[in-house]
Amino acid sequence: MKINGTPTRTIWLAKDGWAVEIIDQTRLPHEFVTARLESLADAAHAIKAMLVRGAPLIGATAAYGMALAARANGSDLALALSYQLLLGTRPTAINLKWALDEMMRALALVPEDQRASAAYQRAAEIADEDVEINSAIGDNGHKLLAEIWAERQAKGTPGRLNVLTHCNAGWLATVDWGTAIAPIYKAFDAGIPVHVWVDETRPRNQGASLTARELNWHGVPHTVIADNSGGHLMQHGMVDCCIVGTDRVASNGDVCNKIGTYLKALAAKDNGVPFFVALPSPTIDWTVADGVKDIPIEERDVSEQTHMTGKTEDGAIVTVQVTPDGSAAGNWGFDVTPARLVTGLITERGVCPATPEGLKSLFPERG
Amino acid sequence: MKINGTPTRTIWLAKDGWAVEIIDQTRLPHEFVTARLESLADAAHAIKAMLVRGAPLIGATAAYGMALAARANGSDLALALSYQLLLGTRPTAINLKWALDEMMRALALVPEDQRASAAYQRAAEIADEDVEINSAIGDNGHKLLAEIWAERQAKGTPGRLNVLTHCNAGWLATVDWGTAIAPIYKAFDAGIPVHVWVDETRPRNQGASLTARELNWHGVPHTVIADNSGGHLMQHGMVDCCIVGTDRVASNGDVCNKIGTYLKALAAKDNGVPFFVALPSPTIDWTVADGVKDIPIEERDVSEQTHMTGKTEDGAIVTVQVTPDGSAAGNWGFDVTPARLVTGLITERGVCPATPEGLKSLFPERG
Repeated sequence: MKINGTPTRTIWLAKDGWAVEIIDQTRLPHEFVTARLESLADAAHAIKAMLVRGAPLIGATAAYGMALAARANGSDLALALSYQLLLGTRPTAINLKWALDEMMRALALVPEDQRASAAYQRAAEIADEDVEINSAIGDNGHKLLAEIWAERQAKGTPGRLNVLTHCNAGWLATVDWGTAIAPIYKAFDAGIPVHVWVDETRPRNQGASLTARELNWHGVPHTVIADNSGGHLMQHGMVDCCIVGTDRVASNGDVCNKIGTYLKALAAKDNGVPFFVALPSPTIDWTVADGVKDIPIEERDVSEQTHMTGKTEDGAIVTVQVTPDGSAAGNWGFDVTPARLVTGLITERGVCPATPEGLKSLFPERG
Repeated sequence: MKINGTPTRTIWLAKDGWAVEIIDQTRLPHEFVTARLESLADAAHAIKAMLVRGAPLIGATAAYGMALAARANGSDLALALSYQLLLGTRPTAINLKWALDEMMRALALVPEDQRASAAYQRAAEIADEDVEINSAIGDNGHKLLAEIWAERQAKGTPGRLNVLTHCNAGWLATVDWGTAIAPIYKAFDAGIPVHVWVDETRPRNQGASLTARELNWHGVPHTVIADNSGGHLMQHGMVDCCIVGTDRVASNGDVCNKIGTYLKALAAKDNGVPFFVALPSPTIDWTVADGVKDIPIEERDVSEQTHMTGKTEDGAIVTVQVTPDGSAAGNWGFDVTPARLVTGLITERGVCPATPEGLKSLFPERG
């Protein structure tokens, strides 16, 4: 998408043709800084320390990480070790494993001295495919938003179309377009007066930092709210639909996403608000049949909960402690929303119910 | 309750016998500072700027505010104006109006020159009554916790008793003991190994700042979590019950409390976790029959959402902006949990279902 009119992706090859450049998302929203990845270690750090985040972008970064690794050493052993190292950076996002498996498949039968170029080629394809997939998700989700908007207009009091989202599943979470936000960009560009309720998304504030930042860049009206607010807004008719992204969808339709998603889905169900989940098909984990029970939930460093970073009046970026000295803290990164609370899954192939049958109808080759 | 062994209330008369002293709760958790209220304006400011907060403490402060006003001018007109000024400081907490009405009742027939002393006397009574009421709530809630604990023990894997709470309904929200936390203090003091999940409670962080602070002072084990976490914890059997306070209960049992309470109640219902609301009877608004529809919800300054205050590594207290420049923010202070999601109301007279009949059974004089 565009930043001040300049088309920008979240990951790209440096001018030298081999290093990889990314937006350092830990510096957003107050600073725009890029980082240069020159090694496997750089790529692993970028994922683990969340310079990049969002399941699709993690996958693309891991793919380029394998390319950087292959450039340094194309041996079977080096690739296997690189695979393991990258796989261990984040435990929940299934796209990470998908991208790494894709890279291994692309490299396995290639002679050692040609692996680096093959790896760069496949990584670039993975990135381009992500953009295409997300654009298609945007088109499919846009149709849903257009229908909901038409319903509002038919009622005679259109106002604006209020969409609530949690965390960041915008273009900053992918290579471009985003997943949950792609339909919003498409609807906005098509002239639907969309307004986005942006959940702050504690503890890491990806909503306030990233979703607000990118909607701002693109000019989409939005309001940052506490994660606590969605229930009240839905209870009072102020939300027309919810769209969130996901880090892993089980084959039964259960949706793993940023911690707190489950609470919003409960509120949506309780108030008859449609709750959609947007995802590229690599996010589906066909091996997990019960998402609530079997998707592992990452526990992250509690400093994300005890501390918060922001900008002072002087423009300095400062981290402050918000809990009392001596109080323990917990930090679960994700939760799982049972499929029964999900109105529909928006994929690059279309929209389906969050059920085994729904998923199989769109992906019969997995049936 | 005790701070470093010293019994402390949240509001008390200064040594001079007329000024009122409070803990400036905006300085917690990192600093302990008291403030001196010498006038009606001081009291109104203390409530509006949330130096004091929590429905019962707001009521007690308003009562002392009337005493300070009567000391300066005991005329009918002055009292009427003071009543209006204090009533306008916070729109949601019903205790504020209750306490002000009590003061007017106590002063109406008293000669003008005796109103100041009558006002101080009634304000002191209101404060003392709050302490007694909360202690009784604690005893009644302690029985419930003891039952849940006995069930855990009967299952053979007792571990600890996990109670989740939202916002601060501890002694800092009242004159002493607290409402939701009173049962926890009583259970802890009686030897039940209770552990409290403390919702951070954005946007003002009363959980992280106040509940964690007072549990810490008293030595009760606790863990501060993002407001987003409760659903995941309940889904995985890590919460035995929820107890929250309330700012207003409608006569149908609907519960108005800090924004986000409704989301936790939904999660509790979805996972079979008991969800209790602790309240002193002045919190019941017998005039409101439909809480979801008719309880007014305060919208507060959006800077509470866009900014956050904490302690730097150097110990300085600093406020930082956490949203991008140019992004709008919203800040609703409360939401209303429908009575159908509430397992029971814990009052000073006992525990009852959150229904009109339940409330009438405990308060037949209102029937």
